[in-house]
Amino acid sequence: MPEFSSAVREPADKTLTARTVNELAVHIGGKVIGDGQRRILRCCGLESAGPTDISFVSNIKYLSQLSTTSAGCVVVDSKLDYQSIQRPANAPLTVIQVDDPYYGFRQIMVLIHGMRSHPKPLISPLCDIAPSAQIGADCYIAPFVTIGENCKIGDRCILYSGVQIMTGAELGADCVLYPNVAVYDFCHIGKRVIIQSGAAIGCDGYGFATHEGVHHKIPQVGNVILGDDVEVGANTVIERAAMESTLIGEGTKIGNNVVVGHNCQIGRHNLLVSQVGIAGSSTTGDYVVLAGQVGVAGHIRIGDRVRAAAQSGITSDIESGRDIGGTPAMDFKLAKRVYLQLFQLPELAKRLRAAEAKLADIHGPDDKQPS
Amino acid sequence: MPEFSSAVREPADKTLTARTVNELAVHIGGKVIGDGQRRILRCCGLESAGPTDISFVSNIKYLSQLSTTSAGCVVVDSKLDYQSIQRPANAPLTVIQVDDPYYGFRQIMVLIHGMRSHPKPLISPLCDIAPSAQIGADCYIAPFVTIGENCKIGDRCILYSGVQIMTGAELGADCVLYPNVAVYDFCHIGKRVIIQSGAAIGCDGYGFATHEGVHHKIPQVGNVILGDDVEVGANTVIERAAMESTLIGEGTKIGNNVVVGHNCQIGRHNLLVSQVGIAGSSTTGDYVVLAGQVGVAGHIRIGDRVRAAAQSGITSDIESGRDIGGTPAMDFKLAKRVYLQLFQLPELAKRLRAAEAKLADIHGPDDKQPS
Amino acid sequence: MPEFSSAVREPADKTLTARTVNELAVHIGGKVIGDGQRRILRCCGLESAGPTDISFVSNIKYLSQLSTTSAGCVVVDSKLDYQSIQRPANAPLTVIQVDDPYYGFRQIMVLIHGMRSHPKPLISPLCDIAPSAQIGADCYIAPFVTIGENCKIGDRCILYSGVQIMTGAELGADCVLYPNVAVYDFCHIGKRVIIQSGAAIGCDGYGFATHEGVHHKIPQVGNVILGDDVEVGANTVIERAAMESTLIGEGTKIGNNVVVGHNCQIGRHNLLVSQVGIAGSSTTGDYVVLAGQVGVAGHIRIGDRVRAAAQSGITSDIESGRDIGGTPAMDFKLAKRVYLQLFQLPELAKRLRAAEAKLADIHGPDDKQPS
Repeated sequence: MPEFSSAVREPADKTLTARTVNELAVHIGGKVIGDGQRRILRCCGLESAGPTDISFVSNIKYLSQLSTTSAGCVVVDSKLDYQSIQRPANAPLTVIQVDDPYYGFRQIMVLIHGMRSHPKPLISPLCDIAPSAQIGADCYIAPFVTIGENCKIGDRCILYSGVQIMTGAELGADCVLYPNVAVYDFCHIGKRVIIQSGAAIGCDGYGFATHEGVHHKIPQVGNVILGDDVEVGANTVIERAAMESTLIGEGTKIGNNVVVGHNCQIGRHNLLVSQVGIAGSSTTGDYVVLAGQVGVAGHIRIGDRVRAAAQSGITSDIESGRDIGGTPAMDFKLAKRVYLQLFQLPELAKRLRAAEAKLADIHGPDDKQPS
Repeated sequence: MPEFSSAVREPADKTLTARTVNELAVHIGGKVIGDGQRRILRCCGLESAGPTDISFVSNIKYLSQLSTTSAGCVVVDSKLDYQSIQRPANAPLTVIQVDDPYYGFRQIMVLIHGMRSHPKPLISPLCDIAPSAQIGADCYIAPFVTIGENCKIGDRCILYSGVQIMTGAELGADCVLYPNVAVYDFCHIGKRVIIQSGAAIGCDGYGFATHEGVHHKIPQVGNVILGDDVEVGANTVIERAAMESTLIGEGTKIGNNVVVGHNCQIGRHNLLVSQVGIAGSSTTGDYVVLAGQVGVAGHIRIGDRVRAAAQSGITSDIESGRDIGGTPAMDFKLAKRVYLQLFQLPELAKRLRAAEAKLADIHGPDDKQPS
Repeated sequence: MPEFSSAVREPADKTLTARTVNELAVHIGGKVIGDGQRRILRCCGLESAGPTDISFVSNIKYLSQLSTTSAGCVVVDSKLDYQSIQRPANAPLTVIQVDDPYYGFRQIMVLIHGMRSHPKPLISPLCDIAPSAQIGADCYIAPFVTIGENCKIGDRCILYSGVQIMTGAELGADCVLYPNVAVYDFCHIGKRVIIQSGAAIGCDGYGFATHEGVHHKIPQVGNVILGDDVEVGANTVIERAAMESTLIGEGTKIGNNVVVGHNCQIGRHNLLVSQVGIAGSSTTGDYVVLAGQVGVAGHIRIGDRVRAAAQSGITSDIESGRDIGGTPAMDFKLAKRVYLQLFQLPELAKRLRAAEAKLADIHGPDDKQPS
């Protein structure tokens, strides 16, 4: 059996600072019900949390866990009625009520744990930077990174080992590229962009002209432009445009092993969950959500705020504001009814046969159909 | 807002040569209708193209764009009737008519923009090459590449940073391996093969013999053979054979995040689009097209020229020449009818209930079924 | 045409030792029927095997191949009746009968071919190891590997080129990490773990709190713990927990391009086949099998020994011991009937229309419904 002890990121030498529940409530503009003097050291899931841990409930589904949690404090929704929760008399619950408990808890996580600490600014002597490349102030460039001719790297960028930035690519300030990310030639990356390990930005689009039995490669002379505050998951692939640019709008967050085809134009603040695939030249509006494993055909236009359920197959344009599901994608409510009915299909066929038999009884044998 | 300016790959110092429409028409064997003296600098999409840009239309669906495009010239299908297109009198259209406009346009792209320029031949002093490895003439081997014992690298190969070639692997002439590609031991790669970043060629097949509750790893002692002119997308995985070889036939083009299982034998000139997954020991004929996210079960035989629609699930052998779709995959035309009908399923169930009610009226209550 | 010669991993200088069929039978506790003195050099597939090769049949589906194989010996199931197999008189079959032929053959593969030979223990002078990192005895650390502060690497670990081990991560003894694997900070990896190239262990979980139109990144302060004897496929991604740990139980084998979301708890001895995607906080019991491209929603509980067919979409909890299939996942037998019926859907609709027409004949026009 492996040693499945709960582990936290804090190294042995990183001391977490204790804060009172009152202090945390002030930090997120919440209201304390219970013991505001309790000291909190750490954020933790509701099931594992102990007396010096803070946790949260944002979904009514998990409300019942409030009766058993040992958490020192729980961030809850102001609108949530948790009066029915039964607790032992000697273990009263302390909560912080706030309008957006998930965001409030996130603010506490940032306060207590912070984001990952990166190495101090340094350009490793073991990396390979072309003489014409421009490196901003206070960057960390790890060993075994390459930066090609005419690249521009913004201030305070963090490039982990094995990151390869090809000719003429540009990164805005404050980007973090994790190990073994490849940024192809002439791609433009905005500010504060995070790219997880192994992602490929700007590899060649899948473009071939088939002529006399041979698939001839079409030069992919465009690039990829990632807007500010984009995050790209591990081993995700964003193809460069055949001509012009594949665009990812600012604030869009992309999961792992996603593929965005060449010449796509993805809007702002989209959520593209892991393993989504979008074929070439498709576009999305702002605030689109594509759940895991969704597929989008080529040359499709998806409007603003469209949300697609996991594994949907989107084969036609979708108007703004719609929730969809299924393959081919349909209205989400219809999809739920269709897929519920799917279970009944063999039964439906049986009932139809029974009805046909009764009809034959009444109506007599049908000439057009062998009885 | 990110700076979403259209960007092209050409660096500042690469001057594009202007060519007349007549020159381009001669190059692709086409016929000019309009002003053959116009000067063209660049290839561009129809919507963004300006007076010195050339674009193309191969699909009648986009024909209407010819009335509004500002492109200096458009490559069109000889068979296409574009006489109905209305243009302002002062902005007449100039076109080049050709039998295969997509291929013709590709030829113009190659003429004007060319394929990617790679660094000049050089073996970086920062790479690690085993003494017994043989490196062909005029290769570019970037920093942080490793080449293992007894490897053979053909002439004029380009190996970008982070490429790892393990013991005994062989590459034919004129291959391009982008950053962080791994070629496992004893794999054979043909001539003119292109492998995008992060792809894994010849990692262990997923083979385990489960015995007394433990999954015992089966040695994967075969390899992968990629034919000439194969292209492999970013972060794609091709497993080595348990015994003998996993084969990819010449001219086959594979997208991103595809998985080809061990002992598969993929035919020649296949198109395996992004996120396709093929389980172990399956085979395909020549000119097979598997669209995005298609899944193929193990030990399946797919004939020549089979085309499978996106997200299909192929669970049985498919004869040559068939178009298929759906899960489990069925004839494509049937699949279209089935998936169209799917939307109607709740309605169908409702109508059946109505018919049953009428039958009960006529027929009287059925003993076998509660009314 | 590529040179599609069968290739084996053995380099020119690795001599395989010949063994008699009798010796091999003793090794796996099997019974020889035929010529026990035959000399066997190599393991091979049944179709390609020659007189000095040994092969196997574990599935009755391939039994007929026994009549044509040229294999020197075939490992077969003791319970298999192969008496009906017709063979030429001058080419009698030699078999080894054993209770578990797949495992028996695997044992012979290990005896004859062994697992991959790795380079001898060495710490390359071209790698970058932090002073505070602890490296066990007899490790091979390739060029261009980085190992961060406070990492611990167990004895006899093999780290291929481009592997990046970030701050505070720990590996147990006898692990093999293939090229360009990234292990993020503070992750714990058990003993004898194998990770294929490009996999990302412990990248940030996909966690964002959307507040006032912005997706705010939630610090991912947990880690990933891989149990002993886990294998992870190429370009697979296992997200670190937001808090606490994402767990993979001992003996679990994961294919290529799989995504395991943050805070998942995967049981022991699971088989997660290529391209499976599991959303955050889901759990599986022991001996679960998820076939290729299966998707699992977030916060789902899957019991022990559940087996899901390829491409299934699991959207609700699944009890132990169930076989499931389809989207949304249902009982596997029902799924087979449903998907068989799916082909008939247009026909079903047609028959319903016919029944309705007959009813209208009998019943007269229905006021509620336009005729």
